Amino acid sequence: MPKLAQTLIVIDMQKALQYSYNFSGLIQSINNRISQYRQANLPIIFIQHNDQDVVRGSELWQLSGKLDKQKEDIVVEKFHPNAFYQTNLNKVLMQNGVRTIELCGAQTEYCCNATIVMAHGLGYKILMEHDMTTTFDNDYMIAEDTISFFENIWNNSFVTFQ
Amino acid sequence: MPKLAQTLIVIDMQKALQYSYNFSGLIQSINNRISQYRQANLPIIFIQHNDQDVVRGSELWQLSGKLDKQKEDIVVEKFHPNAFYQTNLNKVLMQNGVRTIELCGAQTEYCCNATIVMAHGLGYKILMEHDMTTTFDNDYMIAEDTISFFENIWNNSFVTFQ
Repeated sequence: MPKLAQTLIVIDMQKALQYSYNFSGLIQSINNRISQYRQANLPIIFIQHNDQDVVRGSELWQLSGKLDKQKEDIVVEKFHPNAFYQTNLNKVLMQNGVRTIELCGAQTEYCCNATIVMAHGLGYKILMEHDMTTTFDNDYMIAEDTISFFENIWNNSFVTFQ
Repeated sequence: MPKLAQTLIVIDMQKALQYSYNFSGLIQSINNRISQYRQANLPIIFIQHNDQDVVRGSELWQLSGKLDKQKEDIVVEKFHPNAFYQTNLNKVLMQNGVRTIELCGAQTEYCCNATIVMAHGLGYKILMEHDMTTTFDNDYMIAEDTISFFENIWNNSFVTFQ
């Protein structure tokens, strides 16, 4: 089993993204990882995005029902791609004594990228497994290539892949 | 003339990047912008990258000789894509009372992206003009497409383009 960080952060796995690349497969992989963090009694943090298209309380805003989210898990709502921006995420991590985090979720080039860069900049050590983020095809690349492209950018400089 | 920020930050315009897309054209555009900041007596900050391929003191490490760099300009050396990471950049900005910055330079998907996300996360307001960063072609996109792709990601969420 890949090494655990001190917390697992699951970014924006909301119904609005249900048609992104391999969404169901990613949920299975995330649930497996969640289960390992639960067994180790480590906190699991779900980030939940809000914007004009993903409106709080709407169906699309809900976290996917297939995600293994339990009552004791932490939820941090955000209004910007960067999950640290004007949220209490940094405070929550400090309160839990967290210095190493594992990240997964969506979307690769938006919220994952911004949150990874910021977390690293704030001094957190970041662990990831490959193919644990997702996105949509865009004007330049299919989703799988966007994921590879960003994993290459993150690798070593921001993230330790395992 | 596009509005000026309180400082212009020029990222990694070093000889190591002299064969990146439109490098000479970008230097001309940056020099034009530098001239406008000089006329307004606003500080200009050059970021200079160091790593195992771009070794301090080597030819490739030098800022391009065509860049309008003057003795009074500030130079901040870095060892990571994020220009705020383990540098005094944030301190320099605070000492100069800077809250709004304009960014340009290289490489789009590495040092520019990381520095933009971090600057925004630290609360700076970021102005940019289009086509003021550069990079190389990569396995997925030609340089021009990488620039457009990232400008679309930055636009509104991180940067005000003008």
